[in-house]
Amino acid sequence: MRALATHPAARGLLDDAAVLDWPTGLQLVATHDLLVEGVHYTAGCPASDVAWKLLAVNLSDLAAMGARPVGVLLGVALSGNQPAQWADSFATGLGRALETFAVPLLGGDTVRSGAQTVLSLTALGTVPPGAALARMGAGAGDDLWVSGTIGDAGIGLAAANGVTMDARMAREALKRYRRPVPRLALGVALRGIATAAMDVSDGLALDAARLAHAARLIAEIALGAIPLSNFAPAGEIDRLRHATAGDDYELLFAAPPSRRDSVQAAAVAAKTPVARIGRLLAAVSGTAVAQSVQLVTASGKAVVPARLGYQHP
Amino acid sequence: MRALATHPAARGLLDDAAVLDWPTGLQLVATHDLLVEGVHYTAGCPASDVAWKLLAVNLSDLAAMGARPVGVLLGVALSGNQPAQWADSFATGLGRALETFAVPLLGGDTVRSGAQTVLSLTALGTVPPGAALARMGAGAGDDLWVSGTIGDAGIGLAAANGVTMDARMAREALKRYRRPVPRLALGVALRGIATAAMDVSDGLALDAARLAHAARLIAEIALGAIPLSNFAPAGEIDRLRHATAGDDYELLFAAPPSRRDSVQAAAVAAKTPVARIGRLLAAVSGTAVAQSVQLVTASGKAVVPARLGYQHP
Repeated sequence: MRALATHPAARGLLDDAAVLDWPTGLQLVATHDLLVEGVHYTAGCPASDVAWKLLAVNLSDLAAMGARPVGVLLGVALSGNQPAQWADSFATGLGRALETFAVPLLGGDTVRSGAQTVLSLTALGTVPPGAALARMGAGAGDDLWVSGTIGDAGIGLAAANGVTMDARMAREALKRYRRPVPRLALGVALRGIATAAMDVSDGLALDAARLAHAARLIAEIALGAIPLSNFAPAGEIDRLRHATAGDDYELLFAAPPSRRDSVQAAAVAAKTPVARIGRLLAAVSGTAVAQSVQLVTASGKAVVPARLGYQHP
Repeated sequence: MRALATHPAARGLLDDAAVLDWPTGLQLVATHDLLVEGVHYTAGCPASDVAWKLLAVNLSDLAAMGARPVGVLLGVALSGNQPAQWADSFATGLGRALETFAVPLLGGDTVRSGAQTVLSLTALGTVPPGAALARMGAGAGDDLWVSGTIGDAGIGLAAANGVTMDARMAREALKRYRRPVPRLALGVALRGIATAAMDVSDGLALDAARLAHAARLIAEIALGAIPLSNFAPAGEIDRLRHATAGDDYELLFAAPPSRRDSVQAAAVAAKTPVARIGRLLAAVSGTAVAQSVQLVTASGKAVVPARLGYQHP
């Protein structure tokens, strides 16, 4: 870890804690996520990809808040079952990911674990006061938008699980599953434009239901409007599957129709494609999360899938 | 976790990250430590004590830097082997510890693990610019000080491992081992007075060696000056054992002899006893960490124990 902690705030990991100058007038945004071997990634997943994903999922949470990352702290509880080169490969992958997203490693802890490796990461970021995006805040009549493409990570998970598919599709989808790219620039660009935002980690349908439910609304999503990558199957059944698969780490956000131009300008500024996939409607009082999303087919039929996405145990 | 996250910055855990106002002009101090079941605590340790220790060891790192805590983020990878009430007991204990140290829970993550529970905590604090204490910085001729009493946690560990001892001693020592109290007030009071500081987590002798070695010095500790609690055996062999046992979470610090009155005043202000246990001497160039401490008996004999403290695997 020491070789990666080159930022002065890390103090060469010689002290008990990192010390970082805080930019005047900015709020701190902080998130902390764990990855568990065998739960969040398989033992066969390359260590460098695990490192990438650990960083990316935490930065994705900052992106969803419109925050700029300023540093991370890492915890590694390393199983004795890992091959000796695992830690080296993990460190190499983490170093590359930190460099890619220009985020310094500030500190952390490395300890020995037993049967499973458990990884923790805290990501710290900044926002101007009051500018953080929130899951709650969408209004009835707002458009619903999503960045990038949806469903690729789900195909990647299937490929990782040995499902037979086209070799190029497997390669591209595995990359999306194992090396998601947090939408940091878009999150910052959407400050003051989006009325609500979150990242798509458990499936578009489930996360849209959560965003809608937080404001006591219903998300109505046009299945045909869901943006798919050009290698993903695109029939309506396929779209339903893509919309309920997790791990895409795209941004899902709401904005009033009057701000469509601003959203498009933000997307251009952030060099990130966005698609308008539906709208938010008033809900009957007491509507449950599971009933807070409707997927609408080309023929106008509303579908509520039995399983909206990945539900944490 | 939600019931504990009552601070507005936690946003009721409804968002992807916490958002905290940052006090103008202060630096951020951040530390991150893991506790692994079976490594850092036994499966039989009460969950409420595990929660306390997880918080306390991280706050102790802030104390060692002279930082004031402003909040923590928690990660729980919960083994399926834990009894159902474990999580409740853990939450109750954490709530009490957070209240005791007046620190808000800002956010975190709860996931399912396999064979072992792994806990992670990030503690965030503040210091005025440049005021953070550091492990490096002691000068030749500085006094070496330690807070509170040393060796109790080691006796507590022995009690936890079933070593036969006086019932009152076992009870008191177990409490010290399982519920250490971070020296937060003392850390703040020592800003501008101590030339170097760290917390005693791996044994007084080993940590003193590290503090000395960071400044290319040797720590000379008078065995008879090591402060012991009144239930601890106090012969010279016992003192050697106490000095090489871990988990005390006292503050070890250096200050020039000219500041003895300031140190005593800081101790009074922080309502924390301190003891002057030795001094720092110039070392021969290239002295190893293990040779950077000498424990001196009443007869003036210097002892270098075979094992200085707890060495992380």
